[in-house]
Amino acid sequence: MNPKLQCLRNKMASLDLQGMIISNPVNIKYLIKVEAEGLLLITRKENIFITDGRYIEEVHSVLTLYDEVTVYDAKGLTVDDYENFFMFCENVGFEENHLTYAQYKDYIRKYKINNFVETEYMIERERLTKDTEELESIKKACEITDECFNYITKQIKPGMTEIQIAKMIQEYYCEHAEGESFDTIVASGENSSKPHAVPTNRQIQEKDIITIDMGCKVNGYCSDMTRTIFVGEVPEQVKPIYDLVLKNEEQTLIEYKEGANTRLLTKMVENDFKLYGYNLIHALGHGVGLEIHEAPYISFRNDTKLRENMVVTTEPGIYIAGQFGVRIEDTVQITKDGCISLTKSGKDYIVIQ
Amino acid sequence: MNPKLQCLRNKMASLDLQGMIISNPVNIKYLIKVEAEGLLLITRKENIFITDGRYIEEVHSVLTLYDEVTVYDAKGLTVDDYENFFMFCENVGFEENHLTYAQYKDYIRKYKINNFVETEYMIERERLTKDTEELESIKKACEITDECFNYITKQIKPGMTEIQIAKMIQEYYCEHAEGESFDTIVASGENSSKPHAVPTNRQIQEKDIITIDMGCKVNGYCSDMTRTIFVGEVPEQVKPIYDLVLKNEEQTLIEYKEGANTRLLTKMVENDFKLYGYNLIHALGHGVGLEIHEAPYISFRNDTKLRENMVVTTEPGIYIAGQFGVRIEDTVQITKDGCISLTKSGKDYIVIQ
Repeated sequence: MNPKLQCLRNKMASLDLQGMIISNPVNIKYLIKVEAEGLLLITRKENIFITDGRYIEEVHSVLTLYDEVTVYDAKGLTVDDYENFFMFCENVGFEENHLTYAQYKDYIRKYKINNFVETEYMIERERLTKDTEELESIKKACEITDECFNYITKQIKPGMTEIQIAKMIQEYYCEHAEGESFDTIVASGENSSKPHAVPTNRQIQEKDIITIDMGCKVNGYCSDMTRTIFVGEVPEQVKPIYDLVLKNEEQTLIEYKEGANTRLLTKMVENDFKLYGYNLIHALGHGVGLEIHEAPYISFRNDTKLRENMVVTTEPGIYIAGQFGVRIEDTVQITKDGCISLTKSGKDYIVIQ
Repeated sequence: MNPKLQCLRNKMASLDLQGMIISNPVNIKYLIKVEAEGLLLITRKENIFITDGRYIEEVHSVLTLYDEVTVYDAKGLTVDDYENFFMFCENVGFEENHLTYAQYKDYIRKYKINNFVETEYMIERERLTKDTEELESIKKACEITDECFNYITKQIKPGMTEIQIAKMIQEYYCEHAEGESFDTIVASGENSSKPHAVPTNRQIQEKDIITIDMGCKVNGYCSDMTRTIFVGEVPEQVKPIYDLVLKNEEQTLIEYKEGANTRLLTKMVENDFKLYGYNLIHALGHGVGLEIHEAPYISFRNDTKLRENMVVTTEPGIYIAGQFGVRIEDTVQITKDGCISLTKSGKDYIVIQ
């Protein structure tokens, strides 16, 4: 059986679960590499993927003998089939953070489940640390992001619109990777004061500040990087804020390591910002993997520790409403004694002409 | 108050709901045009949108006085604030098809809710029929899709890859609309036998059959169209299947009207396919609106009636595993006495050179 499914079965045994229904498509992709609408059932004797006619061929082309997954077309399944899958299972696990309340009620009835048991992010917790194959994909995605950033800074000229720049990034990623890992942010001038700005038809002007938040996918795995760049010159009033954000970003790269506390890391940056009269209005960072935002979240809300081979971002930012914003972000692999920044684009003032 | 919120409040009153938590982002977009992470609370006296620092500026720029929505940053809310929102509410509605089981449990605790009541697609049922403004957006999206199809058929040449063609469509939509409404399908040769094929690096060849499934967004509203086209000539073995699919697609356009039964419509096509030894392996159609796939679903599973100003697809298809497939699809507005196909691209054999 594939090692991720084997690992899941071991976890289930330790929790006295005889069966499990996996509905989160990201977890299904993680476990069996399949991207298709459907449910993965772990029963006493079998691994079963239930899908429909649209995906059957595709699913068969991805699964190998080694996965030991039986595929069913939902159209061919009877009421009895559903009731038999978990027969003699006392406890069946489900993903309470993915299954809707309506599905929860429906599945208990349809599968005749005795005890439907919350599994508390069991699979997501496996996904927290990345294995060699996953790390390779993320590194590649980060490499392509650096190359794309290098390319794009040579293309940007006053007169171009944010949308045009975002489109160039998107096209680069379509050509060199599996496309964007999220909607690229290109926020110029006063638009940069919105952390989640959507690219507009605003034209780049002389003396503009431009925040670009970008990432791509390789084998389904994401990269994430932000740089704030300048057109022609760095405005005097922006410099102290840029320096403060950069100082803190670099400080986090010193502090990110196995055992570092996520809440404390956030507080460190928050407090330094406050010292100068600013606030950190979003999380300091987040995990990156099959999802662009996944656990662990590095925020004041989350009291946990970084571990070796987690991949996370650090992205401090300061936003002056209606004026401008500065955010600097890298994707980082945690190691025993420190961390490795997987995105490597320069962070000193980047001035385009 | 905006009419969609007023309509929701009337519905709630009729169901003895004094409050409601709306979590489905599509429903939030439908009600108040806001696209941001957050929750819409309908309380006794207020409409409240709870979001976070990343979206506050954006949300304020979309909402008008007329919406009568108060915006809160979650970071500033206390335990007491949450408990006060639904004070004196006996019954509070929630979206059981969107809220996860974990959120369901969490919200009851956090908001101190007495009776948390399932609302059975209350808002989605309002979304089933489109108002004039919504219809205009969908019509425009369909128009752009026809223009894009016309453009693309002039560009496709043997030697191009499926991915290249899909990218051209994507770029056209980025330029002329708000981008794709779903990942464009370009499936050539034997790939066309997969209804949900993902574009590959397969090069278009002489005598190829190519299925293109495409759509874009205007004001958030989607279009959806599929054509199966030919390179150089129509292979003899494909003709009877193309004719059968087209005959059925045109038959549905005659039968689609207010009052037509969705299950019966599907059976009609299924039975005609069976007569010739083929199966309909997916639904006959689906609603189109803010989501590319939404209610009503036109399938053998769904025993309901079409209504005036619903917008739905008809998309019969036949797939010969490992060989080829044919699908023809239009987006259609239902009227009192019939229907209007909003996508208007030709459906006779389309042969490119």
